[in-house]
Amino acid sequence: MANSPSGDSVTDRVVRILETFGTDRTVQTAAQIGRRAGLPSSTAHRLVAELVDSGLLERDDEHRVRLGMRLWELALRGSTALRLRQAALPFMEHVQARVREHTQLAVLEQGAALFLERLSSPASGANITRIAGRLPLHASSSGLVLLAHAPAELQKAVLASPLVALSPETITDAATLRRTLAEVRRDGWVIAPGSIEVVSTGVAVPVRDRGDVVAALSVVLPREAPTAGPLEALRAAAVGIQNVLAADRR
Amino acid sequence: MANSPSGDSVTDRVVRILETFGTDRTVQTAAQIGRRAGLPSSTAHRLVAELVDSGLLERDDEHRVRLGMRLWELALRGSTALRLRQAALPFMEHVQARVREHTQLAVLEQGAALFLERLSSPASGANITRIAGRLPLHASSSGLVLLAHAPAELQKAVLASPLVALSPETITDAATLRRTLAEVRRDGWVIAPGSIEVVSTGVAVPVRDRGDVVAALSVVLPREAPTAGPLEALRAAAVGIQNVLAADRR
Repeated sequence: MANSPSGDSVTDRVVRILETFGTDRTVQTAAQIGRRAGLPSSTAHRLVAELVDSGLLERDDEHRVRLGMRLWELALRGSTALRLRQAALPFMEHVQARVREHTQLAVLEQGAALFLERLSSPASGANITRIAGRLPLHASSSGLVLLAHAPAELQKAVLASPLVALSPETITDAATLRRTLAEVRRDGWVIAPGSIEVVSTGVAVPVRDRGDVVAALSVVLPREAPTAGPLEALRAAAVGIQNVLAADRR
Repeated sequence: MANSPSGDSVTDRVVRILETFGTDRTVQTAAQIGRRAGLPSSTAHRLVAELVDSGLLERDDEHRVRLGMRLWELALRGSTALRLRQAALPFMEHVQARVREHTQLAVLEQGAALFLERLSSPASGANITRIAGRLPLHASSSGLVLLAHAPAELQKAVLASPLVALSPETITDAATLRRTLAEVRRDGWVIAPGSIEVVSTGVAVPVRDRGDVVAALSVVLPREAPTAGPLEALRAAAVGIQNVLAADRR
């Protein structure tokens, strides 16, 4: 009943509509949404109208639509992302106060590092990370930590896939990546100089819940900055977050 | 095509499914979701399966479902909530560092104050506010600021509705509420002692974007704490946020 002739469900089509929005595209017309989501115009207009009625999308004065506060509310209330982020925020603020560079929390999501939180100060250096943005697992320090502790099938799939270079120093060789992942598991941290941008070094550590790695906590430093202090701050913060997550469950 | 015999759209039913999740109910079975969403069991199972396929919901090892990270990502990327919160966070941290009590950002959403962000320290006092949680407009300091600047029809509707007491000191009288709203507009701030909990005082100021009030910034203080310093910190922060929002648009 809910399926179109092409076999995709209404849920799929709703997801395709939501996917057309992004940091640089916050307001669109129904026609633009339909084109970008690959939906027939009548379907797009009808679904957009339904989504506006339910509050998941909102219309502005010029009849264009944007993501609704109701969507934000429903997506956050009761989400694992919010629970993790709430546990992490005070410790991230502590890292941020000490290191004074970008401090970030990421989770593994559909084969990428998805960033749940980012704290920065105006003086912090370059950083392409955005909240609700993604980075490839093999290229970001957070991604390397998440991949090192990911299910074997995902590691295998990533190692077998083309490793795209985001900078001249991104790991693009499967053997090097395999060795790096083993080092991350052995050391409990990673320092990734220049792998996203040559001017920066990412430092990341795992955050565990019930023994499983559930997130990566990281800082982005200027390339030549010392890493020992930031690493120590990250490891202390990860322990603090883990204690809060454990206390949360009791 | 997308409508059920009862006339609600698939989008409505997806919203009803998402609504069954909350801070205290993060994991459910498809059967529980169906019951709570008022959906026939077969419909609930089919829609939950679709939502899991699309990543909007996730299944755990025991075949129960929770909100998906993908939903969180789609809801935040490009959302007004994220833009506002990103503009506000550094200023909220400044308020928090100075006042050392709960600091909150709320928007008007479907007749309530919806909280986008809350910063607290372990030493902060009582506070029922939660991120992605709501409070009634007439009872919370944030709500009073938002209501004071809301469209006339909404003000009229709230003034005509039963004003529920959350504490013995909540404003429950329409004439008092009308007077309070006029004072909020005149003064540019509100101090609401005991209106949510008798042990606390809420202090809130409006945050404007292009002249319109788009949010309320507030602190929750212990009942007898001085309010002049916190109010000054809030007003300075609101100006800071407004400057960032204005710069964002350019």
